[in-house]
Amino acid sequence: MKAVRFFGHKDVRIVNDMEKPTPKGDEVLLKIGGAGVCHSDLHIIDEGTVAGSVFTLGHENAGWIEEVGSDVKDYKKGDAVLVYGPWGCGHCKPCQQSKENYCDHQSEMAYGGGLGLNGGMAEYMLVPSSRLLVPIYDLDPVIAAPLTDAALTPYSAIKRSIPKLTPDEYVVVIGVGGLGHVAIQILREISASTIIACDVTEEKLAFAKELGAAYTINSKDENAAEQIQKITGIKKAKVVIDFVGATSTIELGTKTVSLDGDLTIVGLGGGHYQYTMSGLPFGVSMTNPYWGSRVELMEVVGLARQKKIHIEIEKYTLDQANEVYDRMRNGKIKGRAVLIP
Amino acid sequence: MKAVRFFGHKDVRIVNDMEKPTPKGDEVLLKIGGAGVCHSDLHIIDEGTVAGSVFTLGHENAGWIEEVGSDVKDYKKGDAVLVYGPWGCGHCKPCQQSKENYCDHQSEMAYGGGLGLNGGMAEYMLVPSSRLLVPIYDLDPVIAAPLTDAALTPYSAIKRSIPKLTPDEYVVVIGVGGLGHVAIQILREISASTIIACDVTEEKLAFAKELGAAYTINSKDENAAEQIQKITGIKKAKVVIDFVGATSTIELGTKTVSLDGDLTIVGLGGGHYQYTMSGLPFGVSMTNPYWGSRVELMEVVGLARQKKIHIEIEKYTLDQANEVYDRMRNGKIKGRAVLIP
Amino acid sequence: MKAVRFFGHKDVRIVNDMEKPTPKGDEVLLKIGGAGVCHSDLHIIDEGTVAGSVFTLGHENAGWIEEVGSDVKDYKKGDAVLVYGPWGCGHCKPCQQSKENYCDHQSEMAYGGGLGLNGGMAEYMLVPSSRLLVPIYDLDPVIAAPLTDAALTPYSAIKRSIPKLTPDEYVVVIGVGGLGHVAIQILREISASTIIACDVTEEKLAFAKELGAAYTINSKDENAAEQIQKITGIKKAKVVIDFVGATSTIELGTKTVSLDGDLTIVGLGGGHYQYTMSGLPFGVSMTNPYWGSRVELMEVVGLARQKKIHIEIEKYTLDQANEVYDRMRNGKIKGRAVLIP
Amino acid sequence: MKAVRFFGHKDVRIVNDMEKPTPKGDEVLLKIGGAGVCHSDLHIIDEGTVAGSVFTLGHENAGWIEEVGSDVKDYKKGDAVLVYGPWGCGHCKPCQQSKENYCDHQSEMAYGGGLGLNGGMAEYMLVPSSRLLVPIYDLDPVIAAPLTDAALTPYSAIKRSIPKLTPDEYVVVIGVGGLGHVAIQILREISASTIIACDVTEEKLAFAKELGAAYTINSKDENAAEQIQKITGIKKAKVVIDFVGATSTIELGTKTVSLDGDLTIVGLGGGHYQYTMSGLPFGVSMTNPYWGSRVELMEVVGLARQKKIHIEIEKYTLDQANEVYDRMRNGKIKGRAVLIP
Repeated sequence: MKAVRFFGHKDVRIVNDMEKPTPKGDEVLLKIGGAGVCHSDLHIIDEGTVAGSVFTLGHENAGWIEEVGSDVKDYKKGDAVLVYGPWGCGHCKPCQQSKENYCDHQSEMAYGGGLGLNGGMAEYMLVPSSRLLVPIYDLDPVIAAPLTDAALTPYSAIKRSIPKLTPDEYVVVIGVGGLGHVAIQILREISASTIIACDVTEEKLAFAKELGAAYTINSKDENAAEQIQKITGIKKAKVVIDFVGATSTIELGTKTVSLDGDLTIVGLGGGHYQYTMSGLPFGVSMTNPYWGSRVELMEVVGLARQKKIHIEIEKYTLDQANEVYDRMRNGKIKGRAVLIP
Repeated sequence: MKAVRFFGHKDVRIVNDMEKPTPKGDEVLLKIGGAGVCHSDLHIIDEGTVAGSVFTLGHENAGWIEEVGSDVKDYKKGDAVLVYGPWGCGHCKPCQQSKENYCDHQSEMAYGGGLGLNGGMAEYMLVPSSRLLVPIYDLDPVIAAPLTDAALTPYSAIKRSIPKLTPDEYVVVIGVGGLGHVAIQILREISASTIIACDVTEEKLAFAKELGAAYTINSKDENAAEQIQKITGIKKAKVVIDFVGATSTIELGTKTVSLDGDLTIVGLGGGHYQYTMSGLPFGVSMTNPYWGSRVELMEVVGLARQKKIHIEIEKYTLDQANEVYDRMRNGKIKGRAVLIP
Repeated sequence: MKAVRFFGHKDVRIVNDMEKPTPKGDEVLLKIGGAGVCHSDLHIIDEGTVAGSVFTLGHENAGWIEEVGSDVKDYKKGDAVLVYGPWGCGHCKPCQQSKENYCDHQSEMAYGGGLGLNGGMAEYMLVPSSRLLVPIYDLDPVIAAPLTDAALTPYSAIKRSIPKLTPDEYVVVIGVGGLGHVAIQILREISASTIIACDVTEEKLAFAKELGAAYTINSKDENAAEQIQKITGIKKAKVVIDFVGATSTIELGTKTVSLDGDLTIVGLGGGHYQYTMSGLPFGVSMTNPYWGSRVELMEVVGLARQKKIHIEIEKYTLDQANEVYDRMRNGKIKGRAVLIP
Repeated sequence: MKAVRFFGHKDVRIVNDMEKPTPKGDEVLLKIGGAGVCHSDLHIIDEGTVAGSVFTLGHENAGWIEEVGSDVKDYKKGDAVLVYGPWGCGHCKPCQQSKENYCDHQSEMAYGGGLGLNGGMAEYMLVPSSRLLVPIYDLDPVIAAPLTDAALTPYSAIKRSIPKLTPDEYVVVIGVGGLGHVAIQILREISASTIIACDVTEEKLAFAKELGAAYTINSKDENAAEQIQKITGIKKAKVVIDFVGATSTIELGTKTVSLDGDLTIVGLGGGHYQYTMSGLPFGVSMTNPYWGSRVELMEVVGLARQKKIHIEIEKYTLDQANEVYDRMRNGKIKGRAVLIP
């Protein structure tokens, strides 16, 4: 079968000779409907962060059950499912709660399909356990694939702050890209806090308004923090979520977050920040979350089935993988690219 | 000044000779903008539940600061405010958290203005402490008065269940009246659970759909519970909120709530239920909440200022009080009646 | 192999001809170290509640891995483990969080080993999935077996109330038997609320004091509620946990629980209570929990490994099963009986 | 009356000519029983951080009501009370929940008595509002004074992490000084996590063991982090609380805290840390809390009344204030110094 394989630093090839796997035990073979293309792939490809491994790319996967191992219950051929991305040990306490993104053994293990192990940019994908599947019922796998990361990651980052996201508070979203534009929709649907969106182009800011932001601020402006404080007043924003993670955006977060607020940094922008006790308002919880739990993915599916969130999709074939990565390097993908076998 | 006074069982009179009070210490004199008329008033009037007391009615009050006592800080003449309804001791642990609705000393005290002490159906109202005020900024007090009860009570009932109100779950709202129709709006704004609304007229059910219910069920139908289960599937509804509180609606709740779910009974319909361990699904939390906290009222104001909830208002004068109570007895008030001095 | 089998109403036999099972796939064969004897067994035996089934009794099981199926990872022969009792579908949302006690499909399924399926009163037990195991490391399985129910059930009931169990509050424990005496120890270890224990014999009350109760009240006293209120003052007890569940104890709970408190009924005493909105203090959450989650069982193991809880054990052989049940019917078991193959 | 006054940088004088204040409105005059001496006083005195102000020192105050203003209810002469330290506006949302430590207006206000306004190192202290008092009933004010900070601050820091402090997890306490030695006791009483204490002298480590630490590590050891990991295993410590706040201790925290754990920095040791997304385990919440809420202080009083925590006290007179500050600068105070008028 055809697959998009990572062979090492800047070396991605489309091959045709992969054998179609056969599921055993609790394994499941998925016929891929769509595999989302994510910025983290570029970290792997361009920086070679998973050195020494050769594997099929694609960690945002959806499709239909093709065949199940002999021990699999409750799933049958044709069921539409998502593949939960971070694969943990399955036994430790976080895994027992479906938080495999924080598996105790993360430092010892490959992270999951498309991240060191074979992923979903292929005609078929072998999922190592049926526990990693999430049913999507009537949703189209092509549309649903990006839910596994582009929606799950912001959903989990937001959910951690739900007790603070009351209707009288402000939330700042920095970065209206692949994750940020979904974050605004999720915030609109599961909270009633006033959303202030920041980005550097007028187009992105207009998009943010359409999606539910009440205010938009160009984060390139020198006085962006002051503009935000003018909106929030002295109490500042109870929650700031930074989907960029550059030094300048982290700094913007520290200036606009309130006492006892949440400053959540999701973007892998490589920023750094000189932390001191008195540099941040007292009581701020500064967090660097990673992906989300499988239960949260079930909740994200609930949002999508009710059409409460929408991810802009561009469709491509497996053969176009390198072209898509190039477009992504040049910032030319709007929304999310999905490869369809 | 003019006031609507309770003199005892079925004896409500409009008087003109009340003296305008003068605030001392931490007291505040409010020029009433609007005083909401609530079903609980009928409990007082028709059942004489506050025996032996003579007082001005009205426990949903909003207006403008007219004069402040010598110790009042941070408020000045003309500020638009709500009066938080349940008045506690102010010192105990619940009161310290602004949950005066659950004041440790509730059993020893009059509950608040309009509920044994002088309320807001008058030209002016004396509020015993500035701590009981909640600023509404640019909101119109006439519109805002019902927020203090008709919005606060469902908001507080819903908020207790927020961890369970995830986008993949179902919530049943029984009763689309004065509180229930606000509940649907609040649920739509602060959760993404699928809303199933129940009432006994097609008009109310159509209204529920407009406000955000995804499904409506006529609760008079003998098989209402089965109809709801058909929607939810085997897992049933994670949360049921009953704004009627009749024996039949409580029973409907017990049949439709899920294992480990919340069954919240707000309506004072006088229903009863024979509780046994095996009669309810295991793990159900059955609760009878009362009103809400002042912090929750601040959050409700946040919803209203963003125009995310809307309460239908009918305006009347103080002189029409008895007429309004009659219309209410006959089910002829749509939304909420507000008396305007 | 030898096993204690339920054949129907009041018909329990020790058989010798059961075949030792062979684990396949994700199954695990356990060499039983100890199987706890629980009051719920008497419900099955004396009331025949699992009609039409023949199975090996014992739902509090611990032992050592004897053999694993071909798909089992992370476990090897000799590992000491507990068997988590309530077996759910493994896929639904509660199961994904290890809360199989509230599996969406509970109404369609047998509950678990010893409760309709083969349990642990035998030399070996076949556990259907390795996900149901909880490692106990250096703990002795004979001692640890009752943790799975006699400790897990009160732990889960208590944990739900942790936010209310602050050091300034009171908690009432009704019933100092098999579960209640563990509850007092757990409360002592994970909260600093003042414990008031109720039972009907002076011996039990003295035992409660030893374990950590600050006050004891004989619940047979007509004025038991008044005695409790004298201790708590007007605010009453924030949390009441009833391990008896008789009509009289539920009533005692309703009289001693505070506004906005928790009234948790664990005991299957068959009591009933006429629920009305005004019968209970406002805001009380009344709950009937069932068992606990696997993550909570891991936490219980943490308590036991630190020797922070202790369950009184009486040891018997499999052949003595019927004798033990008789002793239990006559209230002659102190602490917990454990059958040792 | 006599008072210990701050006149500016390194200028503290005992004066005898302060007028005894008279309470008006909601004010309360307190006869001081004891005023705790805190390290933060040295920040004020030695760094002159409250420039331009002259005021009576002492922000850990307890005593008996001497006289109340005309609007004060529920308190009478002779009542023993604590003075809650951080004084907020009293009206904003955090203040409404008694979290005046995070008052929205903190940046515009003096923090409280002894911190820019007149504090309790005097015969009498004027408390600006009765809302700032917390009754201590039968506790001795001399003993209780340090509860307001030395116990409240660690209590609040710990309480934020209670959901993570389960019996199967580890908590690291760095620094067994004035706050840290109370933290260990609080952890012992309200959680069952295994406590690992770190400090730099064997004496302090032995003291930590007495108080409830299961393990102690000398944080001067180069491989302290490795020693801790050897205890916790691969999952590391779910919660780390740093009562030192030096660069080296923050670093120790980042190395020993688990994925999705809490790293709480309480100590004002002036440390800094170069924050990057990949420098910390994913999901860690890094927080710099400040003091605690009044409700938490009520809970701390609950601990003290049950004799579950004990603060070592050294008693001095007001005249010895400068001597005490000197002893403190030289690390010669064991436990907490309290000035007694």
